[in-house]
Amino acid sequence: MENIYAERISALRQMMANKGWDAVVICGSDPHSSEYPSPRWKQVQWLTGFTGEAGDVVVTMDHAGLWTDSRYFIQAISQLEGTGVELHKTRVPGAVLIPEWLSQNASVVAVDGLCQSMGAVSEMEEALSTTHPDGDFRIVDVPDMLEAMWHDRPDIPSSPIATLDVECFGGISRLDKISWLRKWMMLQEVDKVLLTSLDEIAWILNVRGNDIEYNPLVISYLIVSQDYVKWFVKKLSFATPDPDTEDSFNELVMDEVEIEDYDAVYFSLSESESGSKLFADPSSLNHHVYNYIKDSCPDIILTLGKSPVILEKAVKTESEVSFLRQTYIDDGVAVTRFLYWLEHEVAQRNEVSEWEASEKLSSLRAEIPGYRGNSFENISAYGANAALPHYSTPEQGSAMIRPQGLYLVDSGGQYLTGTTDITRTVPMGDCTMLEKEDYTLVLKGMISLSMAVFPRGTAGCQLDVLARNALWKSKRNFGHGTGHGIGYWLCVHEGPQDIRQNFNSQPLLPGMVTSNEPALYREGRHGVRHENVILCKEAGVNDFGDWLEFETLTCCHIDTAAILADLLDSEERAWLNAYNERVYRTLSPLLSEEETVWLRAKTLPL
Amino acid sequence: MENIYAERISALRQMMANKGWDAVVICGSDPHSSEYPSPRWKQVQWLTGFTGEAGDVVVTMDHAGLWTDSRYFIQAISQLEGTGVELHKTRVPGAVLIPEWLSQNASVVAVDGLCQSMGAVSEMEEALSTTHPDGDFRIVDVPDMLEAMWHDRPDIPSSPIATLDVECFGGISRLDKISWLRKWMMLQEVDKVLLTSLDEIAWILNVRGNDIEYNPLVISYLIVSQDYVKWFVKKLSFATPDPDTEDSFNELVMDEVEIEDYDAVYFSLSESESGSKLFADPSSLNHHVYNYIKDSCPDIILTLGKSPVILEKAVKTESEVSFLRQTYIDDGVAVTRFLYWLEHEVAQRNEVSEWEASEKLSSLRAEIPGYRGNSFENISAYGANAALPHYSTPEQGSAMIRPQGLYLVDSGGQYLTGTTDITRTVPMGDCTMLEKEDYTLVLKGMISLSMAVFPRGTAGCQLDVLARNALWKSKRNFGHGTGHGIGYWLCVHEGPQDIRQNFNSQPLLPGMVTSNEPALYREGRHGVRHENVILCKEAGVNDFGDWLEFETLTCCHIDTAAILADLLDSEERAWLNAYNERVYRTLSPLLSEEETVWLRAKTLPL
Repeated sequence: MENIYAERISALRQMMANKGWDAVVICGSDPHSSEYPSPRWKQVQWLTGFTGEAGDVVVTMDHAGLWTDSRYFIQAISQLEGTGVELHKTRVPGAVLIPEWLSQNASVVAVDGLCQSMGAVSEMEEALSTTHPDGDFRIVDVPDMLEAMWHDRPDIPSSPIATLDVECFGGISRLDKISWLRKWMMLQEVDKVLLTSLDEIAWILNVRGNDIEYNPLVISYLIVSQDYVKWFVKKLSFATPDPDTEDSFNELVMDEVEIEDYDAVYFSLSESESGSKLFADPSSLNHHVYNYIKDSCPDIILTLGKSPVILEKAVKTESEVSFLRQTYIDDGVAVTRFLYWLEHEVAQRNEVSEWEASEKLSSLRAEIPGYRGNSFENISAYGANAALPHYSTPEQGSAMIRPQGLYLVDSGGQYLTGTTDITRTVPMGDCTMLEKEDYTLVLKGMISLSMAVFPRGTAGCQLDVLARNALWKSKRNFGHGTGHGIGYWLCVHEGPQDIRQNFNSQPLLPGMVTSNEPALYREGRHGVRHENVILCKEAGVNDFGDWLEFETLTCCHIDTAAILADLLDSEERAWLNAYNERVYRTLSPLLSEEETVWLRAKTLPL
Repeated sequence: MENIYAERISALRQMMANKGWDAVVICGSDPHSSEYPSPRWKQVQWLTGFTGEAGDVVVTMDHAGLWTDSRYFIQAISQLEGTGVELHKTRVPGAVLIPEWLSQNASVVAVDGLCQSMGAVSEMEEALSTTHPDGDFRIVDVPDMLEAMWHDRPDIPSSPIATLDVECFGGISRLDKISWLRKWMMLQEVDKVLLTSLDEIAWILNVRGNDIEYNPLVISYLIVSQDYVKWFVKKLSFATPDPDTEDSFNELVMDEVEIEDYDAVYFSLSESESGSKLFADPSSLNHHVYNYIKDSCPDIILTLGKSPVILEKAVKTESEVSFLRQTYIDDGVAVTRFLYWLEHEVAQRNEVSEWEASEKLSSLRAEIPGYRGNSFENISAYGANAALPHYSTPEQGSAMIRPQGLYLVDSGGQYLTGTTDITRTVPMGDCTMLEKEDYTLVLKGMISLSMAVFPRGTAGCQLDVLARNALWKSKRNFGHGTGHGIGYWLCVHEGPQDIRQNFNSQPLLPGMVTSNEPALYREGRHGVRHENVILCKEAGVNDFGDWLEFETLTCCHIDTAAILADLLDSEERAWLNAYNERVYRTLSPLLSEEETVWLRAKTLPL
């Protein structure tokens, strides 16, 4: 019997032959360029069985390929077996990316324009026009292309909607945010802004939903003009609203937000006055809506650019920052209780699986008031499993955590007052010299970045080496970024800043919250990652500049048992001792007596 | 009586009125975008009296302005007094650069197209077209615009020419370089390359001249096709050639290099076959030649791009590297003898001026076989004078060097076997705590960068923070780059790599030679700069990557008298002690007995 995915690809090729398409591109994202799509848009998974969080597929009559990066190479090879789909590696030297590959292998390319950003399709067009200088190529936009074959395809989600109480839980009111955006529009001389990125919409409207796992978002579009705010959201929520959603809608309507059906965005765009200037961000504007504006809205003058919401959202307000400090303490209590439980449970039973540990951690987080779920899938990985940076702990048959070597747990919570993200690598007992070396060198990097002071204007890529220098000096490295921005009860990954090698020119600004997570992975052996979350803040002005520094928000001790103390310099040791002491003083009043005694021992100075 | 420069500007305004120009741009460079122009092209200095190495002037009927960067602010203010020329600061927040300023203040702009790169004029055009959307503006190209007013203007220089003996002094033969370029041309599908940058021409032809002070270059153009190599150089050298030049020309002719007159480049370009593809680099192609190609060479298809010679020249060959090692030892002997002399002379006479010291240093360098002059103007700066990063030591009335505080000397030599650049900050006696702190923190940065290990692909801007981190942590900084590329008996500043904050994506490659010169300046007090020259080289391959590291070429001790030892960590201290020990072992056999005894004391471990 043929592999189910091979059958689906074969059916797709039948469709391609009927339609005269040389190639079909299936994108791993949704109509809003979301990092994680809801089930309806897990088209790559449906077609190929690949479940990684990043991957796009191209099918031609004689080739099917999945493009993904090093985080998923091992997973892709195993999941694609028997499907006939070949792995194309991205982010490796000499990688041929989809636009270039298409340009060499196709003339008529069909894309699901809903699930491709217009930027991505532009790149394909550009590549094709290079290899087809006479213009004898076509990109066909076929929204919901797979629907005819995918009979039980899930609907567009429409989970209950909540609004933020900014007075109780920090932030800025939606009216103030909208009037900020309107001022920006006046300066930019645009009449309307079309917001397409879901976290930007959630931020500006102060709404949260549950349409995407781990991301508290609502599938929707938003148009803001000087006269109105129109939110295009799945009507289902109207037909049978739950009480929360009803309250939320009422609150929005009080603030003069008009609520319309998700698909009404097209009609609303077509109604624009002649010469009206519409602003949209090509990184999240999908190709289908873009085409619609171009072809069916002759009155619109489209201006493309980076949405101003991205930066505004990333710079946390003072009230958000003070709630975040408390949220990271609460989250630290849950993780500390988990680590206490883990150590004792493993010692007593020697029968604790990665999955059980992960569930225990989630349940401890769930006890925190304001908890609204996890901010991503817990990574609970023992021994060699931790060498996979994005290890997915299986519910059945996950590894047992033993009282030796390293256990890595990367997890986070969504709370009314913020989003958390923390990784601890836990020495479960005896560790090898190599484990200790890696543990210590990664820690040196994390500490060095934590201690950084830098002039205003510095971007993350100009600091990244601080997190890598200790590793590099012993010729070790990790293949992912050091830090990503983090939302406020929003996505655990957000821009515009980051801390990584790539040249991202966005300076780090006071109020930005970023992760600090250097790591080291040894395939088949172990993985180490230490992750704190750091807040950028002002550090004074003098003759030499306007200075910024980081405050560590994460409040959970770093286990000193696997540290080779000789590898730390005196400054690093002082930082570590002060950090662990602060954690002890902050958390001990919130812990049980046994936990406090245990934490005291864990936080004794090195 | 009016200021002579004010008079010249007034005469220029008369010309502008006659011609109907709103604005004139006078550029501080020459027809080849050289960093330092020869006297003929010191037009900015002739017009305004400003002698800084970077500065462009714009004159309108009611305004005259000099645009320059922070290195020259103090100098500009003093030199422009009475001229009516105002200082416009570049590289400061909110700076309005010349293109933007022109776009707001002029419609008809005259430029000396010979002395403006086509890239610079394109930027003006772009800015003007923004403020003049109807196209009602003009940029007029007036080569040698000031000639009518500048009666004693110097000729185009034509100093004696020498060729490189690559067998004796390292490098690659010109025939091999030309055939490398021809292969590149075939891959790029271009028929001819026009080289306009003087150091690229000198490199590929293995010729050196003296047309520009400190830079061993020959004012010329070069065209390379698959069939011929034509070098366009001032004929004067033909008419009355000195023996060296005659030999050089003969050698070039033997290698089938055709030598033509400098101005014949235009005719040669106009002779191109129809459809012939010509490659040139817009960063050094001047606007006048570009215009000529566009207007008078209809048969040429011009392809613009980054010249491949820049990178090829920057990656030193194995033979060049081994000569460089010896050259830096020889140079280190001269500087060590100088430092010995200085300490004793100041102690004995207390009457040594900055100028005398500078002359002494040059004379010691001149004793080295293969010496061909200094690679830039010595910076010999005592006390507060060292706070000016580009202090120019006056011949008359320079400061006396006293047996206390810090003296800074930044200097370099041109040798048949390479170009050197070194800065030492010398504690002359008692130093203040602040001097010692600054001395030590800057040194920590230099050591940290020296010790860096990094994966292939890393660019200078990704390492720069290593040289700044110790300073930044105490909220101190320096306002220039950390490192620049250095030529091989060529320019002391060359690309494409550098080590600075700016996003230059050029990775550091094995064979590249770069300076490592963090610093700290306190106006009115003191300046500290420690500069070694570092060679990038391979450091092995393992599972985590392909590793590179630096080898320090500079061979001259670092004085430990001003170091606050507690501020160094054990690794830094070990590096410093090993470095000073290596310097002692390498140099002592080449020094006198007294010098050796003195150096032994200077290099005792900390």
